[in-house]
Amino acid sequence: MYFNPVETLPRKELETLQTERLKKTISMALQSPYYSRTLGEAGVTPESIRSVADVKRLPFTTKDDLRNEYPYGMLCKPIEEFVRLHASSGTTGNPTAVFYTQHDLDEWASLMARSMYSCGIRKGDVLQNMAGYGLFTGGLGIHYGSERLGCLTVPAGAGNSKRQVKLIRDFNVTVAHIIPSYAMYFSEFLHHEGIDPESLPLRIALIGAEPHTEEIRQRIESMLHLKAYNSYGLSEMNGPGVAFECTEQNGMHVWEDAFLVEIINPETGEHVADGEIGEVVMTNLTRQGMPLLRYRTRDLSRFIPGECACGRTHRRLDRIQGRADDMLIIKGVNIYPMQIEQTLMSMPEVGQNYLIELFREGVMDQIRVKVEIREEFFVEDMRKLQGLQKRIATRLRDEILVTPRVELVQSESIPKTQGKAKRVVDLRDD
Amino acid sequence: MYFNPVETLPRKELETLQTERLKKTISMALQSPYYSRTLGEAGVTPESIRSVADVKRLPFTTKDDLRNEYPYGMLCKPIEEFVRLHASSGTTGNPTAVFYTQHDLDEWASLMARSMYSCGIRKGDVLQNMAGYGLFTGGLGIHYGSERLGCLTVPAGAGNSKRQVKLIRDFNVTVAHIIPSYAMYFSEFLHHEGIDPESLPLRIALIGAEPHTEEIRQRIESMLHLKAYNSYGLSEMNGPGVAFECTEQNGMHVWEDAFLVEIINPETGEHVADGEIGEVVMTNLTRQGMPLLRYRTRDLSRFIPGECACGRTHRRLDRIQGRADDMLIIKGVNIYPMQIEQTLMSMPEVGQNYLIELFREGVMDQIRVKVEIREEFFVEDMRKLQGLQKRIATRLRDEILVTPRVELVQSESIPKTQGKAKRVVDLRDD
Ligand SMILES: [Zn+2]
Ligand SMILES: [Zn+2]
Repeated sequence: MYFNPVETLPRKELETLQTERLKKTISMALQSPYYSRTLGEAGVTPESIRSVADVKRLPFTTKDDLRNEYPYGMLCKPIEEFVRLHASSGTTGNPTAVFYTQHDLDEWASLMARSMYSCGIRKGDVLQNMAGYGLFTGGLGIHYGSERLGCLTVPAGAGNSKRQVKLIRDFNVTVAHIIPSYAMYFSEFLHHEGIDPESLPLRIALIGAEPHTEEIRQRIESMLHLKAYNSYGLSEMNGPGVAFECTEQNGMHVWEDAFLVEIINPETGEHVADGEIGEVVMTNLTRQGMPLLRYRTRDLSRFIPGECACGRTHRRLDRIQGRADDMLIIKGVNIYPMQIEQTLMSMPEVGQNYLIELFREGVMDQIRVKVEIREEFFVEDMRKLQGLQKRIATRLRDEILVTPRVELVQSESIPKTQGKAKRVVDLRDD
Repeated sequence: MYFNPVETLPRKELETLQTERLKKTISMALQSPYYSRTLGEAGVTPESIRSVADVKRLPFTTKDDLRNEYPYGMLCKPIEEFVRLHASSGTTGNPTAVFYTQHDLDEWASLMARSMYSCGIRKGDVLQNMAGYGLFTGGLGIHYGSERLGCLTVPAGAGNSKRQVKLIRDFNVTVAHIIPSYAMYFSEFLHHEGIDPESLPLRIALIGAEPHTEEIRQRIESMLHLKAYNSYGLSEMNGPGVAFECTEQNGMHVWEDAFLVEIINPETGEHVADGEIGEVVMTNLTRQGMPLLRYRTRDLSRFIPGECACGRTHRRLDRIQGRADDMLIIKGVNIYPMQIEQTLMSMPEVGQNYLIELFREGVMDQIRVKVEIREEFFVEDMRKLQGLQKRIATRLRDEILVTPRVELVQSESIPKTQGKAKRVVDLRDD
């Protein structure tokens, strides 16, 4: 069961469609002051594109470009043709703004509806939008998608948990759109009020908007007694509805008829090998008012290899692995701290905390990982500990392709930092 | 220039259209549990309606009925057919909820777009929605109307005045949707920040949502250097977009192709004479999911007699004159405190405060109005004061059809009350 037949289009046809749409998008982009200049300089014309691989001939677009062209420099149509804008807060420097024509809003709503359908939401479901509206794309994005899908939509907005519960009960709400941090708070609120989550009609939570770990998802699922679906979106590419988990919950199908996705090495700009982690780069294929070409999202992810059991042919993005700015280069290899974290956290012996240290030996960069071991595993049997140390090193090498020094330490021995944990210390002198 | 040709339909044709739609609406209403019961009891069928005058044969619907039927009792279609609901907060007892099908949302957006067009807003205008979104119908109502009209819509939401100013400047915002109390605050904010309102591109403010006086409108207009338009709407009839001022700023055209409006004596339920004040009663003519028949709004207003210079044939509602529950009966005459207030406030000699006292002389009810006179007019020349007293009494009698006793008092001599001023004291013993 699919919302749109395009979801199962054979790869070859999908690529043909992408090529067509890329050409069309380039024609439109050339109407904007910014792209007429940059594509002109790069010598790119719609005719020069013969396959999706030719996307590499286009220059990248960055957030700084968006800032510099604020507010109108990337518009391909007269300002009168636009009916919506969303803007970032812009606390430092120029904000960024994205403008939508009516066509673009319709497209966005359709992508959103398709996304919600893919995780099992149907006309007949009642969706409570527990996220804020306004300039944040998450609120209105989900709202329009929900109405497009034909769900009864309750525009509750964020906060006021008591009222949220009343609305959920009174209107038999089956789907909640709720950001992960509020979902955690809301679970605790229910517990505190003595409300059994099983007594609520909720069956699905859409918990995109904030990056979160698999562990958080599972906690939300078990605490609220529902299925929680992850998604990926960013205002520059409309907002939510770019990539969405299907009911397999194993990666987020990115809608490749609307977005041409590349994964690049953020240092070199070259494509990484299939399945490797890199920076997600996106090109709009259906936006008419303000298409972005090769937009560098700074978000790290990878394509999950293989086909999805759901039958959709659109490739799956893995959970976002952090920001491109986090990338480390050791012995010429790109390493993302999130890779190390995920490997460590998958081992039951590993405690809450770890620290990555970079240092130099002679002319060689080296990496050392200090790992807290949980009390019950920190035994005095040196052989056992050495075995564990070796296993961790092997697993890390398999993941990051560099063999790190591994140092096991007692739990609570790595100093905790306030707020966002500092996981990487660079001891190299330059 | 009109958004929809129906706005200038000759009255006769408009009434024919209303009759048709009333019949259709009754057919639909009969699909709901509530109306199938009440219309059945009243013996009303679509066939029994031969003119709009026959609307009198329908029973009234009250807010209590809405509460009793909460949540689904007034729905004419299966719940799966609805895509939106708005609900009141319901701090006491059941809340009320209004459900919309996609058709109903489209209709609402069209009425809203028509309303905005009638006060001079056009595609090419940039509208900043400075009202809250969510369950409040004002936010999403204006938002959808603005997009429908083709205005670039900035979903700013309420609050954060500094940011509002930046958005207004950056995106050349020409129209603000802003509730009157926030407009007053926002004016003060600009003054305090040393921002000249004339330097802002704003030219129109939509200031419905809260009842306000003509004086407040004029203050907003002069403080913000723009035209401010009043409107009327209520969630039970969609939300905003029921009646809207045209550029004549002399009454709000109520869209009679969508709403059948009656003005009744709230005590007897009978129609008042044309041009007289009474309770506004409304019947949906185009809503399909949850049409309400003869809904008693409790709001007081009157039809402004005569034709509007703008050429629209839909009748104009006067500014809301208060709530039906405020009505006083003196010597068999219905009097609304707002009538007295408006008469007093139109006289330059009258100060800030007044008090209405009801008392009994023998078997006769009497009304006394204590009026504060501004310092500079409270002279010692008794003849002048007696002249003023007489003029006030005459003007009030012309307005309320009962001659009140008028007592002139010095300014600041009537005790002020916190919050909502208590304007009426009933000294009659029963
Ligand atoms: Zn799948
Ligand atoms: Zn007019």
